[in-house]
Amino acid sequence: MNLLFAIDDNVVDQLLTTLYSIQVNTPKTPLSIYVIQNKPLTQTNRIKEFCDKRNVEYHPVLIDGDLFKDAPVTDRYPATIYYRLLAHNYLPEDLDRILYLDIDILVINNLLPLYNLDMEDNLYAAASHSALTSDVTDSINKLRLGNYEAESYYNSGVLLMNLPLIRKQVKAEDIFNYINENKNTLLLPDQDVLNGLYGHQFKKVPDEIYNYDARMSVIYQTLSTGEWTLDWVITHTVVLHFCGRDKPWKSEYRGRYSGLYKHYAHLAKLV
Amino acid sequence: MNLLFAIDDNVVDQLLTTLYSIQVNTPKTPLSIYVIQNKPLTQTNRIKEFCDKRNVEYHPVLIDGDLFKDAPVTDRYPATIYYRLLAHNYLPEDLDRILYLDIDILVINNLLPLYNLDMEDNLYAAASHSALTSDVTDSINKLRLGNYEAESYYNSGVLLMNLPLIRKQVKAEDIFNYINENKNTLLLPDQDVLNGLYGHQFKKVPDEIYNYDARMSVIYQTLSTGEWTLDWVITHTVVLHFCGRDKPWKSEYRGRYSGLYKHYAHLAKLV
Repeated sequence: MNLLFAIDDNVVDQLLTTLYSIQVNTPKTPLSIYVIQNKPLTQTNRIKEFCDKRNVEYHPVLIDGDLFKDAPVTDRYPATIYYRLLAHNYLPEDLDRILYLDIDILVINNLLPLYNLDMEDNLYAAASHSALTSDVTDSINKLRLGNYEAESYYNSGVLLMNLPLIRKQVKAEDIFNYINENKNTLLLPDQDVLNGLYGHQFKKVPDEIYNYDARMSVIYQTLSTGEWTLDWVITHTVVLHFCGRDKPWKSEYRGRYSGLYKHYAHLAKLV
Repeated sequence: MNLLFAIDDNVVDQLLTTLYSIQVNTPKTPLSIYVIQNKPLTQTNRIKEFCDKRNVEYHPVLIDGDLFKDAPVTDRYPATIYYRLLAHNYLPEDLDRILYLDIDILVINNLLPLYNLDMEDNLYAAASHSALTSDVTDSINKLRLGNYEAESYYNSGVLLMNLPLIRKQVKAEDIFNYINENKNTLLLPDQDVLNGLYGHQFKKVPDEIYNYDARMSVIYQTLSTGEWTLDWVITHTVVLHFCGRDKPWKSEYRGRYSGLYKHYAHLAKLV
């Protein structure tokens, strides 16, 4: 299973926590991780040592700044936002599938069913959080981003990539142009670009399984008329996503999954 | 590491959850479990299969009712209360140490430091919860049970046994006599008997490490003037004990460690 992360030195612990949770809950599956970084991490040895001990293949992916010399780069749009959008340009050419994951994620059940998803002729697979906020969010985002063919507005924190098709269709030039033309309406640059340009070529997966917003337990339970309880989540949900500003690695974090996250973070440190 | 449990058919899931949590957090340690049962469990095969897969030695310990023919047995004092008190009578004679654990327990760090504790010439090692309630609890219990030499009133849910010494000193007759004489003041029969008869021969271990009462997070934090936070517990506490009526395997349970417990329960089912 090929996994893609994009990190800097401040989130190495979080990367290893996510990775450890994947390995525990997706047993007997060889893992290869590709870790995008715009300069060599000072903690490279720590990642290497972890991966050696846990039998994970580690591929650091150092970004060549030249790739983005034509990109519109400002304070609000640092070059890093393109790393995930153009990952296919600096991943090995023989890779045909990779799963990108944010590092504020904990995997608590087997990831393989997502990884092996039939993507049909879609570029990406991802989940939408629109149902959590309101039914009109999708419409507002379609209007804002000008993509009326897209079924939903997708969260790009868990993003399965169909690399052969992406190599053919996702071009740096299109992305740079889109950003230049839409600068004023983009809120989350990389996620908006993905949705604006390619939202109609996404395969939708259920967020309660593959991108559960850990802040929203009560809303999930209401939406499902009582079905998606804590027990249901523990049994069925694969990806817990700690969206928003309160992060589970902070000492004051007290969300429903705080003990679970912190325990995995602790176990990852013991490796 | 020798572990002792006493169960019936209703708590097999709980036993396996506790056991799984021990194995994950006490790696590279061969486990032998002795499971006291007063009739053969209908779920014996499930325990056997689990132990086979996880490489745990399983020893069912069937209780011979004749051992208790002289015991005072009533509705309030069923014969099962003696199983733990007299375990040494039906465990192999070459065993010199065993750790008894209740099944409402989750182990979240390495158990070996407790198991390898220097017991000196004490019969048992255990923790006290007296500090959680009030400083006078110990005194009241000493008075109630008539043992003024005991340092504390011990919780017997996590009980390390010094078997050679116990075989010499802990006699069925003494226990039966003590119960007959103190019937009216005993609240938790087996725990009270241990404390009343042998409380002065206990080695005390810290409850915040080896018998953390999961209901009492706020009180622990206060007692330690802020030190024993969730992060501290995750890093230092070995045994979480889900004391009281609200049990973490119930669907409505919402304690701070509910997600963590339920995740281990789920993993144990996948074995």
